[in-house]
Amino acid sequence: MTQTIRISSRALNDLALIGSEAFHPVRRFMTFDEARSVVDDFALPTGETWPIPILLQTDDLPSDASIVLEHEGEFVGRLRLIEGFRIPLREWAKKVYGTDDANHPGVAAFYGAGSYAIAGHPVEAQAPLGTALTARETRDEIARRGWRRVAGFQTRNPIHRAHEYVLRVALEVSDGLLVHPLVGETKPDDIPADVRLRCYDALLRNYFPQDRVLFTPLPAWMRYAGPREAVLHAIVRRNYGCTHFIVGRDHAGVGNYYGPFDAQKLVASVSDRIGIEPLFFDEVFYCHRCSGIASNKTCGHAANHRLQLSGSEVRRRLREGIALPPEFTRPEVAEVLQEAVHA
Amino acid sequence: MTQTIRISSRALNDLALIGSEAFHPVRRFMTFDEARSVVDDFALPTGETWPIPILLQTDDLPSDASIVLEHEGEFVGRLRLIEGFRIPLREWAKKVYGTDDANHPGVAAFYGAGSYAIAGHPVEAQAPLGTALTARETRDEIARRGWRRVAGFQTRNPIHRAHEYVLRVALEVSDGLLVHPLVGETKPDDIPADVRLRCYDALLRNYFPQDRVLFTPLPAWMRYAGPREAVLHAIVRRNYGCTHFIVGRDHAGVGNYYGPFDAQKLVASVSDRIGIEPLFFDEVFYCHRCSGIASNKTCGHAANHRLQLSGSEVRRRLREGIALPPEFTRPEVAEVLQEAVHA
Repeated sequence: MTQTIRISSRALNDLALIGSEAFHPVRRFMTFDEARSVVDDFALPTGETWPIPILLQTDDLPSDASIVLEHEGEFVGRLRLIEGFRIPLREWAKKVYGTDDANHPGVAAFYGAGSYAIAGHPVEAQAPLGTALTARETRDEIARRGWRRVAGFQTRNPIHRAHEYVLRVALEVSDGLLVHPLVGETKPDDIPADVRLRCYDALLRNYFPQDRVLFTPLPAWMRYAGPREAVLHAIVRRNYGCTHFIVGRDHAGVGNYYGPFDAQKLVASVSDRIGIEPLFFDEVFYCHRCSGIASNKTCGHAANHRLQLSGSEVRRRLREGIALPPEFTRPEVAEVLQEAVHA
Repeated sequence: MTQTIRISSRALNDLALIGSEAFHPVRRFMTFDEARSVVDDFALPTGETWPIPILLQTDDLPSDASIVLEHEGEFVGRLRLIEGFRIPLREWAKKVYGTDDANHPGVAAFYGAGSYAIAGHPVEAQAPLGTALTARETRDEIARRGWRRVAGFQTRNPIHRAHEYVLRVALEVSDGLLVHPLVGETKPDDIPADVRLRCYDALLRNYFPQDRVLFTPLPAWMRYAGPREAVLHAIVRRNYGCTHFIVGRDHAGVGNYYGPFDAQKLVASVSDRIGIEPLFFDEVFYCHRCSGIASNKTCGHAANHRLQLSGSEVRRRLREGIALPPEFTRPEVAEVLQEAVHA
């Protein structure tokens, strides 16, 4: 008998990332022992640092050893089943997300995805990558370009000048940039992936040296797990050939669940072990006294000289058709955002 | 009998730097074997990488084992003599400076300082450091501030926005900056040291976070030996507690004697051995399309969007009282320069 399991967009993302070697050395949906080791010991049973379980969550235990995976009615792969197990949801949420509060969007997604997990090896996986390069393709392209120092940049946001500044600083100390935005599921109030990709394209095409930037999406979803997810982001970028990884303030955080530098601290503590060097950034803004973008680390001026817009202020301006100031957003990017909001 | 030797400002600088531990592990004016090893093998006889001989040059061999050093009529130290020797000037110039052309200002200084060298240990040295911190004092201050990543910046020029940009990028990837301008002898057409120090002070005071910058002069002279001098600059900054060292385009170069990236290549090849990580920069300019300072590494725009002024153009403007554009020089720095020229 064959059992068909319908998987979510998030699980489809994970299937694609396993196939892309993004999660190396993880090559399957984790067993209970593997996931427990990750949750409790921050490492795989083999000892490698690993921050977040990679689970195929379902509502029931599997009824058959032969499993077909479907997404939106399409065959997307089979699973060579190892085991099914019940997930200690609240305990693991607390340990991975630092909270079991269902108002946390990552915890909510975890609770909502099902109380059971099916461990096993994907086979014949056909998870669509779209235009995204696999980890191997990305490493090959980096080698072809002869880059030795490569800085990876992860984001789920449209690109404003603060992000551009971070990219430029990273590029000054590297041979090339991997601009690697997440295009899997994010919070409903985040800007949709296709709009974000057009923003990146507008910025990179109009401002950066084309031969020093590699731009490809990453079909991953946001867990908003803060420090632990920052470590996952760094490991994935190492697998894509990066030597350096940009970690911002409250990286992969949400609300007030994490301190602004918790993610940087955790990444710093494991960077030698996971084999990628972090580039840490603090708050970035336009400073009228500096007449340019600067950060808490480089600008000595008082807050009243600084221009910063919150995400909700940006959304309000876009909704009401108020221009985003050129000190905050490049006109080419603002245009993409305005069009998208009023389309 | 005691022989008195009058030493030049440059030799006085070297005496001060030996006393300051700036040249660690070099603690004396070099013997012939040491200098020959440095010239031919790019290393001390003990194996440590060392690029340029530290010589006390004179016009004659020493006549006595007891040597008193004088500068401008003042006692500045004694020397425990090891030996005197004749310097193979042209051969060593070729190997250290890459040229024996007496039009090269460093080669000219080398030829002009005397055909003999006196090797020995300075004792009772009283070479004035002025306000400059010693290597040990600088390391202690860095430790007190708790900085773990410290980027050293060397320059012999007044500070324009291109230099500021380099400092800011370095500060983004470090805990603190050691701004360490040379105040020993430079070319006659370089801006005098006291004016340069006031420029630095104006910039750092008005634009940078005070607690993240350590500003102290280095009483060293310029040899303009390009790649080999860049390595010396890096070793000296390692001795002052830096973990990173900024190496610009044609660092320590002059005229067209060196390729624009020769110094970076040589520093890269020895950085592991000398124990300091280089931060390499390319040409930096104001770009009107970027509406900010950018570099060849980060800006994708054509040359006609870029504003760059040569050193001679800056001097011409200062002489003729033409304002330096704010895109090129901060007004606070331009004011210092204007005042100095018209004083």
